[in-house]
Amino acid sequence: METLKISIIGAGSGYTSEIIEEIVNQHEQLPIAEIKLYDINSERLEIIANFCKRYIKAHNSSITITIAKNLQQAVEDVSFIDVQIRVGGNQQRTLDEKIPLKYGMLGQETTGVGGMMKAFRTIPVMLEIARAVEKYNPDAWIVNYTNPTGLVAEAVTKYSKAKIAGLCSGGLFPKWWSKKALDVIEADVDYNYVGLNHMNFAYNLTVKGRPMTDEEFDKVLENSNHGDVSVELMKKLRLIPSPYLQYFFHRSKKIKMLQEKTTTRGEDILELESEIYSAYADESINEKPEALKKRGGGGYSEVAINVIKAIYSNQPYKIIVNVPNNGSISFLPKDAVVELPCLVNSYGITPLTVGTVPKQIWGLIAAVKNYEQLAVEAAVTGSVDLAEMALLAHPLVGDYEIIKPMLKEMLEANKQYLPQFKL
Amino acid sequence: METLKISIIGAGSGYTSEIIEEIVNQHEQLPIAEIKLYDINSERLEIIANFCKRYIKAHNSSITITIAKNLQQAVEDVSFIDVQIRVGGNQQRTLDEKIPLKYGMLGQETTGVGGMMKAFRTIPVMLEIARAVEKYNPDAWIVNYTNPTGLVAEAVTKYSKAKIAGLCSGGLFPKWWSKKALDVIEADVDYNYVGLNHMNFAYNLTVKGRPMTDEEFDKVLENSNHGDVSVELMKKLRLIPSPYLQYFFHRSKKIKMLQEKTTTRGEDILELESEIYSAYADESINEKPEALKKRGGGGYSEVAINVIKAIYSNQPYKIIVNVPNNGSISFLPKDAVVELPCLVNSYGITPLTVGTVPKQIWGLIAAVKNYEQLAVEAAVTGSVDLAEMALLAHPLVGDYEIIKPMLKEMLEANKQYLPQFKL
Amino acid sequence: METLKISIIGAGSGYTSEIIEEIVNQHEQLPIAEIKLYDINSERLEIIANFCKRYIKAHNSSITITIAKNLQQAVEDVSFIDVQIRVGGNQQRTLDEKIPLKYGMLGQETTGVGGMMKAFRTIPVMLEIARAVEKYNPDAWIVNYTNPTGLVAEAVTKYSKAKIAGLCSGGLFPKWWSKKALDVIEADVDYNYVGLNHMNFAYNLTVKGRPMTDEEFDKVLENSNHGDVSVELMKKLRLIPSPYLQYFFHRSKKIKMLQEKTTTRGEDILELESEIYSAYADESINEKPEALKKRGGGGYSEVAINVIKAIYSNQPYKIIVNVPNNGSISFLPKDAVVELPCLVNSYGITPLTVGTVPKQIWGLIAAVKNYEQLAVEAAVTGSVDLAEMALLAHPLVGDYEIIKPMLKEMLEANKQYLPQFKL
Amino acid sequence: METLKISIIGAGSGYTSEIIEEIVNQHEQLPIAEIKLYDINSERLEIIANFCKRYIKAHNSSITITIAKNLQQAVEDVSFIDVQIRVGGNQQRTLDEKIPLKYGMLGQETTGVGGMMKAFRTIPVMLEIARAVEKYNPDAWIVNYTNPTGLVAEAVTKYSKAKIAGLCSGGLFPKWWSKKALDVIEADVDYNYVGLNHMNFAYNLTVKGRPMTDEEFDKVLENSNHGDVSVELMKKLRLIPSPYLQYFFHRSKKIKMLQEKTTTRGEDILELESEIYSAYADESINEKPEALKKRGGGGYSEVAINVIKAIYSNQPYKIIVNVPNNGSISFLPKDAVVELPCLVNSYGITPLTVGTVPKQIWGLIAAVKNYEQLAVEAAVTGSVDLAEMALLAHPLVGDYEIIKPMLKEMLEANKQYLPQFKL
Repeated sequence: METLKISIIGAGSGYTSEIIEEIVNQHEQLPIAEIKLYDINSERLEIIANFCKRYIKAHNSSITITIAKNLQQAVEDVSFIDVQIRVGGNQQRTLDEKIPLKYGMLGQETTGVGGMMKAFRTIPVMLEIARAVEKYNPDAWIVNYTNPTGLVAEAVTKYSKAKIAGLCSGGLFPKWWSKKALDVIEADVDYNYVGLNHMNFAYNLTVKGRPMTDEEFDKVLENSNHGDVSVELMKKLRLIPSPYLQYFFHRSKKIKMLQEKTTTRGEDILELESEIYSAYADESINEKPEALKKRGGGGYSEVAINVIKAIYSNQPYKIIVNVPNNGSISFLPKDAVVELPCLVNSYGITPLTVGTVPKQIWGLIAAVKNYEQLAVEAAVTGSVDLAEMALLAHPLVGDYEIIKPMLKEMLEANKQYLPQFKL
Repeated sequence: METLKISIIGAGSGYTSEIIEEIVNQHEQLPIAEIKLYDINSERLEIIANFCKRYIKAHNSSITITIAKNLQQAVEDVSFIDVQIRVGGNQQRTLDEKIPLKYGMLGQETTGVGGMMKAFRTIPVMLEIARAVEKYNPDAWIVNYTNPTGLVAEAVTKYSKAKIAGLCSGGLFPKWWSKKALDVIEADVDYNYVGLNHMNFAYNLTVKGRPMTDEEFDKVLENSNHGDVSVELMKKLRLIPSPYLQYFFHRSKKIKMLQEKTTTRGEDILELESEIYSAYADESINEKPEALKKRGGGGYSEVAINVIKAIYSNQPYKIIVNVPNNGSISFLPKDAVVELPCLVNSYGITPLTVGTVPKQIWGLIAAVKNYEQLAVEAAVTGSVDLAEMALLAHPLVGDYEIIKPMLKEMLEANKQYLPQFKL
Repeated sequence: METLKISIIGAGSGYTSEIIEEIVNQHEQLPIAEIKLYDINSERLEIIANFCKRYIKAHNSSITITIAKNLQQAVEDVSFIDVQIRVGGNQQRTLDEKIPLKYGMLGQETTGVGGMMKAFRTIPVMLEIARAVEKYNPDAWIVNYTNPTGLVAEAVTKYSKAKIAGLCSGGLFPKWWSKKALDVIEADVDYNYVGLNHMNFAYNLTVKGRPMTDEEFDKVLENSNHGDVSVELMKKLRLIPSPYLQYFFHRSKKIKMLQEKTTTRGEDILELESEIYSAYADESINEKPEALKKRGGGGYSEVAINVIKAIYSNQPYKIIVNVPNNGSISFLPKDAVVELPCLVNSYGITPLTVGTVPKQIWGLIAAVKNYEQLAVEAAVTGSVDLAEMALLAHPLVGDYEIIKPMLKEMLEANKQYLPQFKL
Repeated sequence: METLKISIIGAGSGYTSEIIEEIVNQHEQLPIAEIKLYDINSERLEIIANFCKRYIKAHNSSITITIAKNLQQAVEDVSFIDVQIRVGGNQQRTLDEKIPLKYGMLGQETTGVGGMMKAFRTIPVMLEIARAVEKYNPDAWIVNYTNPTGLVAEAVTKYSKAKIAGLCSGGLFPKWWSKKALDVIEADVDYNYVGLNHMNFAYNLTVKGRPMTDEEFDKVLENSNHGDVSVELMKKLRLIPSPYLQYFFHRSKKIKMLQEKTTTRGEDILELESEIYSAYADESINEKPEALKKRGGGGYSEVAINVIKAIYSNQPYKIIVNVPNNGSISFLPKDAVVELPCLVNSYGITPLTVGTVPKQIWGLIAAVKNYEQLAVEAAVTGSVDLAEMALLAHPLVGDYEIIKPMLKEMLEANKQYLPQFKL
């Protein structure tokens, strides 16, 4: 009876092993029969596909690994399409990180200028995938963990009819931190949660159905990894922000720190990649390589498999997903994609209502959403003016003197990935 | 480890056996150690308590049945407080049914004039219970299936801080009908659902995650029990209304039917009650009496136990509950109680967003909610003027010539149960 | 410098003399040079045009009266296009009044079933005019007093880009009544005002900038002409409803009264018409005929000329107009046409915010607006199903048993005016 | 018949002469009989009062100038209370300008950190005035041009029942610039306008009722005085921002410019003040001193007198005022004070609906409003934590590392004016 098929687009990624591992582990609850792999980088695809086959064999699994030769094959005849692409690779990421720093602006993969450039490269490719899904397999779900996942989900839901679940593991962080700090299980912890991808806040935390005490809350904060968000500040806010808020609440310090580093995160990863792929290519290795841990990230596969389980089974799950707002956050448009707790089951993904958003942060969420909507429109239309407006609307940028030359340089540096812009 | 305790207020009701039966059946998932019974009718309470003890013994259950002597005892030291009271009993219900018919208006237990009078009698008592919960056991949940459950939940959430789940089995009807018509299991069926208690609509139905076909939808309608709602009309609406919509969409025919009946539903039940209590009092009987089936109703215990399981465990459930709107229905106030699909878990009860309400019925929902809000305010303040305004706002009444004398007679007939009105 | 030109569509109406009279009176503030007349009834058009010329001469006015030969001529080369048509004439109106009464339903020109049929006949013709304006004179304003003015304005704003001011004199009634009762001038009186055409309410009345006292308010009610709306009821509501609310708040009494009349209002007017046109045709008569007073109505010309003055001059006016809601009434769609106080000047017509709508009546307004939106969609698409849904949504109808045969008979009786319906 | 009385609080200000001048000029439309002057600086009050008397005599006016001895006298027995206070004077303003610059932050009178400190000093005094009005003269209107006028109006409307018109001349700027550029009169120009005080935007400009052409729009921009807002940027935005947007759109450049100046604006004015008051004290001078022009500002008296005329007469005016939102801007709370076009007459001040806010700037408006609401709450409660949250929410600040020491220094420097803060 195991007929569930899924495909992975961007399967040449080193993270593919994580999703395979999760699938094999959860085999009893999620009877996947076939995993189809697709990537435009055929060399990496082959390495990873071979690894996956070895892994599956080593774990006595009966899952079939197949290769899709083109996008149509990649999307058809499956129930779920995982997408984990990186348009322009870590080479372009490095430019996203470096160029803004020259202008005194944040250089970061998903937040600010760098994130916008990543969106410009990624959205046209994602829309191509979405249109293939619309055409060849309209009932399938795109399970996306390509960043910037919020902007990608907004573009796909606004400009196509494909169904998409925009994922991020960030919604689980307060659970992970509470588990560690309070010695409970994840399911014992719950909270309100509101915002956008990488611009979100958990609050009103409960343990086993009762409100977390002040002592517990402080303990959670002290045992968490918030990047550089000040614990003192979080205690005052009585909110748990996404670690990405470090780039907002400590903006000048973070820019200085990044400027002082000799290599960017992207460059570090480029270094690691050869090590990682060597490991995958080694036919004697059947397990996730150690180097992957240094790579960081991760956690997405847990969320992705939960979403697939919830939709496939008829079991309701509460999962934080990037979805159209649908009225949940009253001050944002109904079609704006937001990151909210959702009920996921075979019916689809429905956001829960959030009621009143905490008074400390609603304006910041609105400002960043405004940026995002302009950035998505710029990404789709290729309008330089709109790209300028997007950065003008971004609370961390906003400065026309800087925007003009910086954007020009960024667009130039990404030229080959931006056919929509007439440069 | 079985430490969960619940209490039942109004435990003298014949329905108590249903909840006991459900608890015993579900014992493995819901380890209830003690059920505390409370009623102001001590004679019936004794009969039912004795029956419960026999039933539990006969089913080899270790649950303890205890008796609360006053409201404080009834609410303290338990996690859930089921409330199933009928203020004024079926005697007063009979008047709710009969008096409006004399004026050419619908005489019915929960809809229209009769429902408002039931609310007037019930709300002060419910608020007394809610205040006892606030005082003696603020963490406990009231699980209410006292009608009119929507108005009761609105009164309790607006005028107290007690936690309340306002239940009705109506949200399950489209599942039940689909199961029967399409030969699937309940969990295979899902839908959007919007409205108020007894004024609600299911739409966009799915089977196993895919949209129901027109043929399947029609089959469901033809196999359902919608009272007298026309199947032809439902096909045109492409919605499944609550059976109570028969009193709206077929208003004159229904009034005529009720006027032609020789006895009202309340009178029929008064007849049945002696038979039912005789059965309960018979010490040789350990099972739910047959007469209870004739009594009708039922189904509440399934919803009630699901709510308790969801809150007690950390398993998320999707359950249709009467809760404050919280922004889900954009054209209703945030604090208006509405009947919506909710995610229920130990965190509490959070309504899902509904997005755009079908164009055929949003105005009707608004009109009835307006009536409900005025009725609740009248019930709490005892203002005759507000009671008149409430009926003026009700789409089935609205006629000042009739409202004045009819309301006067109704208030007079309920005088002893309406201390809040200075009559 | 007198270059302002206006045209009147439906100029064969007996009311044309009123607008001419108002224009002549206000000549100093509103320098109209030419009035173009158009009607499909050429006989009546000639009678009225000749009368207008005599009237203008008798009043020493230099305004030129011209005749448009077709719709293009009627709409081009003018700044304002007054529209006052009656599709099907008073003959069809009589059927709108009579048929519903046979089914125990209200028979009335603008409210309920009759109003919907009038909308079905009128909207296609109004859209034809609007499209001519879009094509030949997109900067011109349509100044409409064709009923049902709210539905007409909703259809024109939703289905064309023509600019339209949907007028009714009803917004002035509380001023007129206060003036009479309190012996003040109209400009001394002001109020909040909310709702739809013929479904609206004035409240928070002020005299000379201070709140009206209870005594004054009661005096206003007692000196008003509210049809049969109970003064006692209005005192309780602390609102001044449109007189058309008599058909809601006193529904059964009003139907009985109409059923007992031997002739309908439409029939009475048909009688009067020959008298009125004889008077207009009499070359010795240069003044508005006495018979017109018996015809009733009137007052529109004051509102129409105020709107034209406000748009033409740069003087801001506060005028109650039927316009897209634009967020003023939070529980109605932004594009729903509502009747609200607006600021009118050369910039256009902008509704004022209304804030919280009185708790007594928001649901009724929502219910009627829902009916209106379905009725407009039915009028444009010619869908019988939508027409049934519209009546099902109407608080005064709502009864499927009655809707089906009544609608069938109404559509049949209007067949020649309803090309959009495939009957 | 000249019975209108007004009072001026903060009458020792050099601007008092402007309002007197305007009143004398407009005497025919606005028959003011008495102007009552009040100030806590009795020396300046005497100088100004004497000047006013000389001025009135020189212009053959019969207005009586009187002196109020305390707040009660200042507010009672008048119809309008103009308030133009500067708590802490230009001495404290200088600190508002200087301290933030030390931290690399904008030092400015109303925008950013400086504006918040001004609000902290001003709001308690304004609430004292508002409470005196509530007590001694609840029907009177406060006509406020004390900055930050938006925060002041929000505090007064939220924390008192006094009626307040929060004024700024900024709403007239696009009229003034269009007049100059296009050689038309002010009344020929109109526009949509949305936002907050000093954070607002005009768009959809019309001349004589028709849309402004691109050429005209560009001409208006080129002839305006926008501080340093780039004309090129405004052309791209197709919006006319408040000149204060220079501090947002050109943030780093403006801070650099201010840091490079040897004296702040406040210091320049302190210099000018002695010159101005010497002039006023000179008994031979009966006209506004020349030095006042160098002082800048101005224009408020035109708006103030228009508001008074509109409320006093029954003539409707369209005036841009800071008022509670009332639903006009859908993404802001109903009680948030916003700067919007309003209809002003004796009924009061009602904002017009604005519909959809331009996509370029809604997020920025939301972010600044969020800051404002937190700042007002901090000003009233004296909470340092809330003050930190307010600056964290401000798009120009947001940096916790800087906020903490900077706020500490600012609070310390204003200690004597901040009794509400326990420092």
